[in-house]
Amino acid sequence: MSDRIFNFSPGPAVLPEEVLREAQEALWNLDGSGIGVLEHSHRGPAIDEIFASTQAACRALAGIPDAYRILFLQGGASTQFAMLPANFLPDDGTADYLCTGSWSKKAIAEASRFGAVHVAASSEESNFSFVPRGDEVRYSTRPVYVHFTSNNTIFGTQYGEEPAAPEGAWLGCDASSDLFSRPLDVTRYGLIYAGAQKNLGPAGVTLVIVREDLLERAVRELPTMLRYRIHAEKDSRYNTPPVFGVYLMGRVFRWLLERGGLEAVAAANEAKARRVYDAIDASSFFRGTARPDSRSLMNVTFRAPSEDLEAAFVAEAAKQGLSGLKGHRSVGGMRASLYNALPPVACEALVQFMKDFEQREG
Amino acid sequence: MSDRIFNFSPGPAVLPEEVLREAQEALWNLDGSGIGVLEHSHRGPAIDEIFASTQAACRALAGIPDAYRILFLQGGASTQFAMLPANFLPDDGTADYLCTGSWSKKAIAEASRFGAVHVAASSEESNFSFVPRGDEVRYSTRPVYVHFTSNNTIFGTQYGEEPAAPEGAWLGCDASSDLFSRPLDVTRYGLIYAGAQKNLGPAGVTLVIVREDLLERAVRELPTMLRYRIHAEKDSRYNTPPVFGVYLMGRVFRWLLERGGLEAVAAANEAKARRVYDAIDASSFFRGTARPDSRSLMNVTFRAPSEDLEAAFVAEAAKQGLSGLKGHRSVGGMRASLYNALPPVACEALVQFMKDFEQREG
Repeated sequence: MSDRIFNFSPGPAVLPEEVLREAQEALWNLDGSGIGVLEHSHRGPAIDEIFASTQAACRALAGIPDAYRILFLQGGASTQFAMLPANFLPDDGTADYLCTGSWSKKAIAEASRFGAVHVAASSEESNFSFVPRGDEVRYSTRPVYVHFTSNNTIFGTQYGEEPAAPEGAWLGCDASSDLFSRPLDVTRYGLIYAGAQKNLGPAGVTLVIVREDLLERAVRELPTMLRYRIHAEKDSRYNTPPVFGVYLMGRVFRWLLERGGLEAVAAANEAKARRVYDAIDASSFFRGTARPDSRSLMNVTFRAPSEDLEAAFVAEAAKQGLSGLKGHRSVGGMRASLYNALPPVACEALVQFMKDFEQREG
Repeated sequence: MSDRIFNFSPGPAVLPEEVLREAQEALWNLDGSGIGVLEHSHRGPAIDEIFASTQAACRALAGIPDAYRILFLQGGASTQFAMLPANFLPDDGTADYLCTGSWSKKAIAEASRFGAVHVAASSEESNFSFVPRGDEVRYSTRPVYVHFTSNNTIFGTQYGEEPAAPEGAWLGCDASSDLFSRPLDVTRYGLIYAGAQKNLGPAGVTLVIVREDLLERAVRELPTMLRYRIHAEKDSRYNTPPVFGVYLMGRVFRWLLERGGLEAVAAANEAKARRVYDAIDASSFFRGTARPDSRSLMNVTFRAPSEDLEAAFVAEAAKQGLSGLKGHRSVGGMRASLYNALPPVACEALVQFMKDFEQREG
């Protein structure tokens, strides 16, 4: 028996146990170097190797072409909300944003400081219960880029595939809560960013994948730390990087490769999510909150008949070792986050608990 | 015998072994919660406790008055180089900077984007071999603040005490490489910042101590993540913070308190540095590079009679388990970094090695 419980937290979130075991060793003594991973100079050979192997694993995992750079930054997606338009949206330019939740709204607010933002679609009137696509989207004439949030952690919605962008515009994406949960076609994007703390690693490191030719198109002078080009030129070590986060991401990438890569991971994630959605759909007690065509495979949001029952559900589940199931206040009810590292057995336990709870309370 | 070697790295640097042992446990299962420290929601009770206890330990350790806020940010000192003037230096204002090395120069370059910078003193002509004080400093008429680098990691120099600031100006300080290595009078400062990776914890978290009344004096609109006031209002959790870094800093603060606090730590650091400087001064083979009145207790920089001998020194020391002694290329030679967590026995081993090397090669 493990002394660990099932962790459905929306992020920071569960990490692979194999990776945690390796990290425990590395904290004390990295690969027999006599120095722990936190204590090595970021310019020494041990950390050179970590940066190189993490980038290589990332490239292999997602099939990232040479024309894209992989950066390890700090400040989370919230810093990217500003950094992306600061670098690429001119004062007199327009960027199109798809507004699908709280994080999209924050991205829009930051971009509006730098240029014009056209909200090409929004699902706010339906409390962000779906992701707009096709003729639900009205682009402006010549946007520099189209920005979207691929998965909405709070509202339990997700784009099944990238939205189409108008001719000449590249896609910018906040993929914080679903990057590397499934295959993606990187060539569709100009820039993808993700805070690591859901599927990739610990809080405190942000993965940025950026098309190299964009780096030369920065539109204004900025503080050095906000310039993508500097981080690319210095291979993410302009200043002291978040070494432990990069180390752990590298281990997670290798763990994903060992499990068969993103196709296999996607199949496992689909099976996990289907198990929970099927239980919701088969029940007259629970109901999902997201429009079925927009359901997230990462965050399953659902309600019970009353707030009292929902509170009881969350509390009793926690007592049985099913942690982190409380929904965000914007949606209410419950949310089960099923990231890559959550084992299928956790979903089995959740579904069994749902059945037991419904039988008792329904 | 430990499987760990003596680590004289300038940063990231050695951490207390007791803290590393605790961190290993916490990675797997934090305080019996069944969830590792990396995997807990940053808004849950376990992380609430870590933030509160880390702040409390920091306040107790340095005697930080209630009128100051303690923030845990990302992006290192390099981000602070820009964030401080972005918040507090108006377009038509002047800030005075003491230029004592590479980091000061970078701080000056970032500040110059926002307002006028007056370099009140510089030791660049002597390759930064000392820190200017007293009548070596010429302030401007009405600077908003005076910025200095308390310890210069590369050049092995350090301010023994805070420089005097002109009436009406507050002190801003990059204390990345000596914060909490000795007592300090926080009330002399408006804002102190330090990347954690020397004396405080791992790379990826930046400690900021800021006088609360300054938060209301921000001089321009900025992206949300660059505003100190937002981070203060949200208690460093506007977005997902670098949880593991905050956890580890808290453990390091407690470790320092258990050893008697900053007075005791300063005495231990002085004894360690004196041991190495005495060995240099007693030798006709080695020579220090810093002006004696400016010598750093954190980074001891020294040379041997030739570059070949210096290369041999560094290589042979590494073979004997004394790692990270290569000096920065701006100074050449050797550098021994003696941060809080470096045990005195490491200095004994270094001094013995220096004697043996001199006897053989001198």
